[in-house]
Amino acid sequence: MDRRQRSALSRFREGGHAWWETAISDVRPGHIVIRGEPIERLIESASYAGVVGLLVGNLRLSGGQSRLLEAALVAGVDHGVRAPSIAAARMAATCGIPLNCAVATGINLLGDDHGGAGEQCMELLYETAAAAHDATSLSSVAEKIVAGRLGSDEKLPGFGHQLHKDHDPRRRPMLSLIDQAVAAGEIQGSFAGAALALEAALARAKGRPLGLNVDGVTAIVYCELGLPPAAAKGLFCLSRGVGIVAHALEEMQSGDRIKGPLPPGDDMVKYTGPAETSSR
Amino acid sequence: MDRRQRSALSRFREGGHAWWETAISDVRPGHIVIRGEPIERLIESASYAGVVGLLVGNLRLSGGQSRLLEAALVAGVDHGVRAPSIAAARMAATCGIPLNCAVATGINLLGDDHGGAGEQCMELLYETAAAAHDATSLSSVAEKIVAGRLGSDEKLPGFGHQLHKDHDPRRRPMLSLIDQAVAAGEIQGSFAGAALALEAALARAKGRPLGLNVDGVTAIVYCELGLPPAAAKGLFCLSRGVGIVAHALEEMQSGDRIKGPLPPGDDMVKYTGPAETSSR
Amino acid sequence: MDRRQRSALSRFREGGHAWWETAISDVRPGHIVIRGEPIERLIESASYAGVVGLLVGNLRLSGGQSRLLEAALVAGVDHGVRAPSIAAARMAATCGIPLNCAVATGINLLGDDHGGAGEQCMELLYETAAAAHDATSLSSVAEKIVAGRLGSDEKLPGFGHQLHKDHDPRRRPMLSLIDQAVAAGEIQGSFAGAALALEAALARAKGRPLGLNVDGVTAIVYCELGLPPAAAKGLFCLSRGVGIVAHALEEMQSGDRIKGPLPPGDDMVKYTGPAETSSR
Amino acid sequence: MDRRQRSALSRFREGGHAWWETAISDVRPGHIVIRGEPIERLIESASYAGVVGLLVGNLRLSGGQSRLLEAALVAGVDHGVRAPSIAAARMAATCGIPLNCAVATGINLLGDDHGGAGEQCMELLYETAAAAHDATSLSSVAEKIVAGRLGSDEKLPGFGHQLHKDHDPRRRPMLSLIDQAVAAGEIQGSFAGAALALEAALARAKGRPLGLNVDGVTAIVYCELGLPPAAAKGLFCLSRGVGIVAHALEEMQSGDRIKGPLPPGDDMVKYTGPAETSSR
Repeated sequence: MDRRQRSALSRFREGGHAWWETAISDVRPGHIVIRGEPIERLIESASYAGVVGLLVGNLRLSGGQSRLLEAALVAGVDHGVRAPSIAAARMAATCGIPLNCAVATGINLLGDDHGGAGEQCMELLYETAAAAHDATSLSSVAEKIVAGRLGSDEKLPGFGHQLHKDHDPRRRPMLSLIDQAVAAGEIQGSFAGAALALEAALARAKGRPLGLNVDGVTAIVYCELGLPPAAAKGLFCLSRGVGIVAHALEEMQSGDRIKGPLPPGDDMVKYTGPAETSSR
Repeated sequence: MDRRQRSALSRFREGGHAWWETAISDVRPGHIVIRGEPIERLIESASYAGVVGLLVGNLRLSGGQSRLLEAALVAGVDHGVRAPSIAAARMAATCGIPLNCAVATGINLLGDDHGGAGEQCMELLYETAAAAHDATSLSSVAEKIVAGRLGSDEKLPGFGHQLHKDHDPRRRPMLSLIDQAVAAGEIQGSFAGAALALEAALARAKGRPLGLNVDGVTAIVYCELGLPPAAAKGLFCLSRGVGIVAHALEEMQSGDRIKGPLPPGDDMVKYTGPAETSSR
Repeated sequence: MDRRQRSALSRFREGGHAWWETAISDVRPGHIVIRGEPIERLIESASYAGVVGLLVGNLRLSGGQSRLLEAALVAGVDHGVRAPSIAAARMAATCGIPLNCAVATGINLLGDDHGGAGEQCMELLYETAAAAHDATSLSSVAEKIVAGRLGSDEKLPGFGHQLHKDHDPRRRPMLSLIDQAVAAGEIQGSFAGAALALEAALARAKGRPLGLNVDGVTAIVYCELGLPPAAAKGLFCLSRGVGIVAHALEEMQSGDRIKGPLPPGDDMVKYTGPAETSSR
Repeated sequence: MDRRQRSALSRFREGGHAWWETAISDVRPGHIVIRGEPIERLIESASYAGVVGLLVGNLRLSGGQSRLLEAALVAGVDHGVRAPSIAAARMAATCGIPLNCAVATGINLLGDDHGGAGEQCMELLYETAAAAHDATSLSSVAEKIVAGRLGSDEKLPGFGHQLHKDHDPRRRPMLSLIDQAVAAGEIQGSFAGAALALEAALARAKGRPLGLNVDGVTAIVYCELGLPPAAAKGLFCLSRGVGIVAHALEEMQSGDRIKGPLPPGDDMVKYTGPAETSSR
């Protein structure tokens, strides 16, 4: 039976399971232990990114790996007030709800279309790397995959950007850090290779460059570190969450009440329904 | 007129303002600039905590200050599945919504009573430090403030913990790092002093220790760095957010569907309303 | 001790209480009983508004009373796409999250400043009616209350509307229905009287009419039916919720992806932070 | 190109569209017009369910049709505190956030697995009715569809209930009202027929009854009225929303702070991660 069909209750009734089970944390009087690590030690010596790796991915990252994950988290912190998530969080902050609820509003919008490209790109990179057995075949594998996607009118997640046509400014510094990490032996680099092969194949197929965007370069990092694709949306919450917190707080501190998407008096709102029926 | 009474539209009509104004980020084709810093530079050299300070608090933190903020973010990452925010996020993850929406569910619960003690403790520390003009008076100032709160049956936010009666395990390592930062000249230490004076006064008044908890020790850090109290709830979103992401993902990967707070068959749910009226 | 200071756990440990207690519903195999009423009977003979009164207020409303509550719910269903709640829900609907999550986004914004005037107006009406012992004194009581509020630069919740300067179109039909219900003996009319006395006193004090708005006329109904002020925000969720569902669904069906508050190319977004620092 | 691939900006740039377009409401000073109907008329003469049909489905329902839709909304109002949506809303209400935010928390959980069966059942009913050209073939069409689903280990959405094994108590009264509406010529009854044919085929295939549940009987109503499947989740928000509001308010009024899913001291929480590593 498909796991998705099994209710929590069914599994519980099979026996052997507590209702709430977790391998993440054990909390008792005077003790907070996270994946075996006492919280004292994490406070003293773990970085935020290292703790993200530990909790979210059950990974013990090296210093260099943590630094790479940190850069990926930094890369996505903000993309301005026009992003729906940021705008919604700012509007929420003017409606008389606590800051955390305004932040939750923004994070609620980081869904499959707004924050999902990272996950989809990770799946693409895992698929590409799995299909390429050796360096020689990588280019043709990438070509085949790109052709398949374009042939069915699909976009390649992680490539191209509506605003940053020429280049996503986050591409170059992230690829640089990835290169350094490969050189230092911190990561293998096979997913970076897959991503660059796809980028090249896509450019050839399109006849113009459609480079890796922020979702693409962070997906490389997440794959290199061994995170599952399903984690990507969660990591984006922690990354873009910084901008959401900052924007919601800025708006809250402005003291404005009830800010909608735009002021009245323009032609940006149009009613397309039936005219008012005559009164009785 | 009170600022809270002024609508966004009123301010806009006064002129001189764009509908959407922000000092946080400037995003144009090929450019993402955050408080004057190009995103490229942040990716290359800023830590996550440093970027949090920059975006949320408009602060240029030193390395040592960033490290202290990072430790504060790490301190609150998780407190187990019994916390309402974590439990709600896990239940959400079994209801067929994307991971980010489950995360938003958890963050929505970090309100005044669940995640608000940090903000209230910051206000308390700012008040205490402002009232104490010199080291000699600090102890008596703290005594007066504690007496005032206890006299009106108020709790002191940031002190005591329902579960960790003897000591909050996050207190000692955080105070240690704070001490080191004072010694290194990274922070002044006046808010640490205020907090310890309050802790001592509270112990004397109560006749038993009621030590600084995680909200208290992180509030010290936020005050030392010059953050506004209103930011505390936002920082907690980024801190506990790590645990929320990890727990929601773990639950989602379990494949369980529709997990409520507890299984049937116990005496933990009681109906206290009227008996069923007889059928017609 | 203040009730707000008592944790759920403290009460539980005092004994005599189940962890989850409710007087609302009793659900067992084959049985769903709501405040003593079997669900079968509610389906067969209760109106939506009647069920709202039963669940939310523990009220057994007459047909006429239910009709009045229904009109109040209808009055607030929508106020267009410029409202932050509606706009946020529509933006959410373009981000790749399920419809219910887009609806939750909108409802999250109906906070103290966006959806809280009803609750505040109910408190005002309860205060006014309690202070007025007889019809003769009502006018002077209202005058005193209005003067007190205006003297401390407070707005009167439930009066005036930024857009509908001359009259809120929902005022007249609601007052009409309220009059009819008083005439039919369904409600007493004392809160309607209080509201009209406040409206008259406010007009005298301001030298221009500042009539009852939708929050004011629905607050009258909720007070007449004996609902607590704290319920108002919940009722507004069910009322404006209709518009939120409709708008989110319309936007979702449009097929658009990632709609922000406004398109690029205008002067409605302004960056007010520092200029980009020179690169290294 | 797939519509899902088109960004809001791409459509806008094609021209001919305002950024915000809606056929739902037109709001100007002194005027609120909803799908051509002035709000005054709706307040005076429309029922809540009628307005739901108008806004959500662009339907002008007759009195009998509105009554049927109302019964469907009433049927789903509550299913007790063990439902994740209700429990999460109650926990949220103890965390110091406004009532509307607690309600939004609950609604956020009504996702594909918790509140999505209605939509899936509508698709099933539309598919079944479309495949059955006449009454003679309906039974064999249903049999084929049931066999197909069971053969691929899928559940039939809208049938069976984990708790109400013998019968969902909402089935009988809803089918009764549906029958009456068919008899009165308010609806055609073809989707009721399809649902009953599926129910019979499922019972034969399983060798035991697996009757229509609340999602199934409300799906019949929504199909009969011509609503799109995508609307079902929104309608459930307005239906279960009543219970969510009532439960959140009850919990808020209890005065409890920070209620988790269950009290400490039991065996319902289990840590399955690594043991604490020895301290340094």
